Amino acid sequence: LSRGMYVLARRQLHNLPAWDIALLLESSPPKARAIIWQLVDADEHGDILEELSEEVQKSIVRQMAPEKLAAATEGMDTDDLAYVLRGLPEPIYQEVLKSMDEQDRQRAEQALSYEEDTAGGIMNTDTITLRADVSIDVVLRYLRLKGELPEATDKLYVVDRQDKLIGEIGISRLLTVDPSRLVEDVMDADVHGIAVDMDETEVAKLFERQDWISAPVVDENDRLLGRITIDDVVDIIREDAQHSMLSMAGLDDDEDTFAPVLKSTRRRSIWLGVNLITAILAAAVSSLFEDILAQMAILAILNTIVPSMGGIAGSQTLTLVIRGMALGHIGSSNQRWLIGKELAIGALNGVIWAVLIATVVAVWKQDLLIGGIIAFAMMANLLAAGLAGVTVPLILKKFDIDPALAGGVILTTVTDVIGIFAFLGTATLLLG
Amino acid sequence: LSRGMYVLARRQLHNLPAWDIALLLESSPPKARAIIWQLVDADEHGDILEELSEEVQKSIVRQMAPEKLAAATEGMDTDDLAYVLRGLPEPIYQEVLKSMDEQDRQRAEQALSYEEDTAGGIMNTDTITLRADVSIDVVLRYLRLKGELPEATDKLYVVDRQDKLIGEIGISRLLTVDPSRLVEDVMDADVHGIAVDMDETEVAKLFERQDWISAPVVDENDRLLGRITIDDVVDIIREDAQHSMLSMAGLDDDEDTFAPVLKSTRRRSIWLGVNLITAILAAAVSSLFEDILAQMAILAILNTIVPSMGGIAGSQTLTLVIRGMALGHIGSSNQRWLIGKELAIGALNGVIWAVLIATVVAVWKQDLLIGGIIAFAMMANLLAAGLAGVTVPLILKKFDIDPALAGGVILTTVTDVIGIFAFLGTATLLLG
Repeated sequence: LSRGMYVLARRQLHNLPAWDIALLLESSPPKARAIIWQLVDADEHGDILEELSEEVQKSIVRQMAPEKLAAATEGMDTDDLAYVLRGLPEPIYQEVLKSMDEQDRQRAEQALSYEEDTAGGIMNTDTITLRADVSIDVVLRYLRLKGELPEATDKLYVVDRQDKLIGEIGISRLLTVDPSRLVEDVMDADVHGIAVDMDETEVAKLFERQDWISAPVVDENDRLLGRITIDDVVDIIREDAQHSMLSMAGLDDDEDTFAPVLKSTRRRSIWLGVNLITAILAAAVSSLFEDILAQMAILAILNTIVPSMGGIAGSQTLTLVIRGMALGHIGSSNQRWLIGKELAIGALNGVIWAVLIATVVAVWKQDLLIGGIIAFAMMANLLAAGLAGVTVPLILKKFDIDPALAGGVILTTVTDVIGIFAFLGTATLLLG
Repeated sequence: LSRGMYVLARRQLHNLPAWDIALLLESSPPKARAIIWQLVDADEHGDILEELSEEVQKSIVRQMAPEKLAAATEGMDTDDLAYVLRGLPEPIYQEVLKSMDEQDRQRAEQALSYEEDTAGGIMNTDTITLRADVSIDVVLRYLRLKGELPEATDKLYVVDRQDKLIGEIGISRLLTVDPSRLVEDVMDADVHGIAVDMDETEVAKLFERQDWISAPVVDENDRLLGRITIDDVVDIIREDAQHSMLSMAGLDDDEDTFAPVLKSTRRRSIWLGVNLITAILAAAVSSLFEDILAQMAILAILNTIVPSMGGIAGSQTLTLVIRGMALGHIGSSNQRWLIGKELAIGALNGVIWAVLIATVVAVWKQDLLIGGIIAFAMMANLLAAGLAGVTVPLILKKFDIDPALAGGVILTTVTDVIGIFAFLGTATLLLG
């Protein structure tokens, strides 16, 4: 870029909202990211960092000078601050802390004391608290003095002298209630704070279920620590829903589409390595039937069809079961019904495709017996696919292994091996 | 169930919140669903229907008597009402309309006049509107008279005499502002209503981007029609995120894990049929090399490894590109960079796995030449996988075909065909 272009680009970036610049950064290759970041106003750095995905944020934050980073995080929401700092290597993190003013440093240390991916990690400390024994009128005057409420404030929290959460009042209720009444008479006392160590996925489920806009977070003694707002929960819901899709392709949740080549290669090669082992395993199974393969090349040609169909049918079942488990629909009471259902589907689809493939092979290769053998193998493998599609994820979950990550590999190994055994094994018996 | 059990079950269901009963219905096979539905209090029917997924809701609604359904929809939010009615066959729908009172009927007909999956389809009409020339004090008194605000009300809308949207006021602003001021001096006049025909996915993106809790919906003349709230948007975000995962397995968005066997079989068999065609195509390609396969059974055994690796590598790229397109990260400016990146990853992974598979084959089968041939084929296919992983979804999108649905089949066909050609073709040249 020439000097004139720089000025122009800087001016254009200056007029874009933080969210658009974040999108631009996410959509750019590493080198372009570094250039864009240098052109952005330093005052905007904080707002943009908040909008970036973890992976991209990390790559940018690690290239910033500690004092610049400290300046960028000034005034950030507590949860965003913790999110940014967690991405730093220990020595840089210490330097950033040193460059902060006392208040921000305390806030940062507080925020980092909670586990990542828990309620504590996504909460803000910008709650407005009330005492139970004051009148609504006093509350209204207090708010008017305050001048502005934090974003997404839909409720004020009522605490006692020990900061224990004892009630909440929606701000729309403040508007409609008789101002002479006391807070304790108006508040909703049936309030349950979210435990600070609750997993963020559970938090998201609660929000979806209760249609919350914000919710209070408490410690083990029910003391109010902060609040979680729907905008952070929306991110979690989207990430959780994407997680299964990415895991099924052996990809990391944070996988950055524009990450450097070496980094991406290293990550993906693990998955390819696992798959190579299963592919060699399948070849080894075929290898058991080398004699019949050597006699009849047609078997070699048809050998891929049955495993392929089993893999597809099994993946369909697996995908549905993984989604069902994520939504909490599948438990011990309906597992057996589900296995029965998938076996029935496997049997029905087995009959359909067995007849069809037998016909195709009989016509194409003029061989009725081989048509019958492939039909039998198809039937057996689609049954196996239905069974494995339900049981593999259930078993993995019992051992606390993510079914979205490991399920596909195990499933296709099962359908490959059974498919080959059923086809080449039967062929050996009948033709060998 | 015996008579005593019925009473017990009914009492237990009576104590469960609507959301839990909805979860129970979603997690039950069809027959159990019908029994549970009969045991539930009729007053709860409406609340439960609102929480059900489309597929399950449809199956229940179609079995209800029209007048019962009309009673259940009484007092439902406009968007939920439209959602339920849309699932009905025309004659039943007419009967339900007839059983409604005049007001509900009008509301229903209004709601159904908007397209499904648009802003109009997910909006509610429960907006509170203000005039610009009244004082905040008058507004506060009006709200106090009203007594209660609709759920998730975070903003009131200011309209002119023609109902045109001219501003909005957050209710937290009402609490903090000087009551003697006029609405027009306090309101945010920089308000842009969502067009009633905007696609719901676009609406969800706007909400995510702007961190909205609710947003106004307007017609082409900027007249206020209703508002969309975050709780409905959250459902869309989750569904959109799940859509890609389900589509990649050839499954419908609304696929119900516990649907009847015949229905599920019919739906899934389409996908298996498509896959059978591609599997036969791959077999036909192998068939071109029948001569060399007949000579050397070892080629038949190894023939599946290269296509399998190409399929996995290509799926990884495809998954990332599909996600990137959904997030709006991939456009014309970075496509070339992305193709370059994925080719580079393909080349690097190609070298790694080519060397490894050559070594394995050379050791296992004591054949250096075949090791070299499979290494070459692996290299070629991983390059092809990288290229196809980016270009297939981009091309499909240009033709307005969902890449998540069709991408996988096309991609694996490409990697199967190229993998087989590269392996068996080279083998024919060098060994035939």
